[in-house]
Amino acid sequence: MSLENISCNKSFGGWHKQYRHLSTVLNCEMRFAIYLPPQVNNGEKVPVLYWLSGLTCTDENFMQKAGAQRVAAELGIAIVAPDTSPRGEAVADDSSYSLGQGAGFYLNATEQPWQAHYQMYDYIVQELPSLIEATFPVTQQRSIAGHSMGGHGALVIALRNPDQYCAVSAFSPISNPMNCPWGQTAFSAYLGNNLEHWRAYDSCELIKQTAAQPKLIKLPIRIDQGEDDSFLHTELKPEALQAAAQQADYPVQFYRHQGYDHSYYFIASFIDLHLSFHASHLKKA
Amino acid sequence: MSLENISCNKSFGGWHKQYRHLSTVLNCEMRFAIYLPPQVNNGEKVPVLYWLSGLTCTDENFMQKAGAQRVAAELGIAIVAPDTSPRGEAVADDSSYSLGQGAGFYLNATEQPWQAHYQMYDYIVQELPSLIEATFPVTQQRSIAGHSMGGHGALVIALRNPDQYCAVSAFSPISNPMNCPWGQTAFSAYLGNNLEHWRAYDSCELIKQTAAQPKLIKLPIRIDQGEDDSFLHTELKPEALQAAAQQADYPVQFYRHQGYDHSYYFIASFIDLHLSFHASHLKKA
Repeated sequence: MSLENISCNKSFGGWHKQYRHLSTVLNCEMRFAIYLPPQVNNGEKVPVLYWLSGLTCTDENFMQKAGAQRVAAELGIAIVAPDTSPRGEAVADDSSYSLGQGAGFYLNATEQPWQAHYQMYDYIVQELPSLIEATFPVTQQRSIAGHSMGGHGALVIALRNPDQYCAVSAFSPISNPMNCPWGQTAFSAYLGNNLEHWRAYDSCELIKQTAAQPKLIKLPIRIDQGEDDSFLHTELKPEALQAAAQQADYPVQFYRHQGYDHSYYFIASFIDLHLSFHASHLKKA
Repeated sequence: MSLENISCNKSFGGWHKQYRHLSTVLNCEMRFAIYLPPQVNNGEKVPVLYWLSGLTCTDENFMQKAGAQRVAAELGIAIVAPDTSPRGEAVADDSSYSLGQGAGFYLNATEQPWQAHYQMYDYIVQELPSLIEATFPVTQQRSIAGHSMGGHGALVIALRNPDQYCAVSAFSPISNPMNCPWGQTAFSAYLGNNLEHWRAYDSCELIKQTAAQPKLIKLPIRIDQGEDDSFLHTELKPEALQAAAQQADYPVQFYRHQGYDHSYYFIASFIDLHLSFHASHLKKA
């Protein structure tokens, strides 16, 4: 199946569009959304921010609730929002919201029954940007952001591929999945019990490893966390990431916000600052 | 049942909250949402914009998708989003999305089986503002806006109660419900076949009637319509409202937007202008 356009809405002078395509990496049909800012109407090519969503989300949550299009239109940035896992009747699933469909954790599964489809890491790092850059009027300047499970995904993917992204940001990321219930459940199921395999998908471990690689590019990282987030102390653990960053001398812009929770009301309140952060680094590239 | 708070999210320094209460007028439990801007944190009282949503919506669509909180916070305006009909197992319903629950049309039904609960006009005009003004730190400065069926509701309610509102605005309103399929279906069911009763809920008829009342207050009216709205020619018919306004010498600010459709992507693109419009008139009161 080739790329099939399934919706199109004008938004702040640009266009929000949804597409279906057959993913080779995930071995199933996938949907994604793209926001193309008005600059493309004049034949301009624009950089791309990839947005990774959290547990239970699809491509729609961010595009409908974050209010990102206004500033993306001003700054001339495209936004691509993929789904959060492979989908479909043939794809393994679980009754829990934190495992299976809607909960791909942006990793390459090695265990049964997940391995056949759950290869979200390769999908986000390779297949999707190749497709986007071959299809839409975009440059190869990329940056990446996400929320919760998607904040984990964005950090892991950027830390492992610093030459591919200009910057990374996260709202309320699962910062240390090896040491929280959501992460342990997912990593056990998808990766098995070898902790070495888990480390490749844990932001804290990855950031610590950079200390041994002094020539590595250090990416601009911005993280925002609500103080009234009900998952803060059990699942998100940003203090672990801050400690790891300090230990590795890796600069991270970290902001805490009193009274804000884990919802899109929090994201919408600060998404403009994330877009400006990305724009400043995308323009330098 | 007294007013029960069921959710609370910090948003742009203010608060988005949902409440449940037993409506006397509607004879059922109702939910609404309110956005309180940060000015109330300092003990300030703020004016209120009532937002009426379209077919199938609840209080959530506008609050989650319109991106209105940013500018409401800047301007110091509270926003109240009621549900679009009475709800519940005891409430009459219909299998069509354009009749029954989610489709109250902001009128007082006189026919069976609707009369017992479908009294949305009185709920919006009387019960809800009384409750809001008795409960929250708001002034009695009100204004009203809506989308599609809610645009119809906002126009009808403001035109019939010009002393209660400072201004009215609408996105893609059902402008002449007496002469479109959605309106005719709803009015037949809720109001019976006497066309005199229909005229009391038709913006075109109401605006024409103002010609005979030269002392009547003429409200500031703003209407925005997408040119690529698939309901434009069948259901919305803004040209009928423009003709009626011209006939009655009633000034209406009317804006058409090339390429925009009926969705919240359209609303989000222009909501800031509606909020500024309301703020300019609320401040004068």
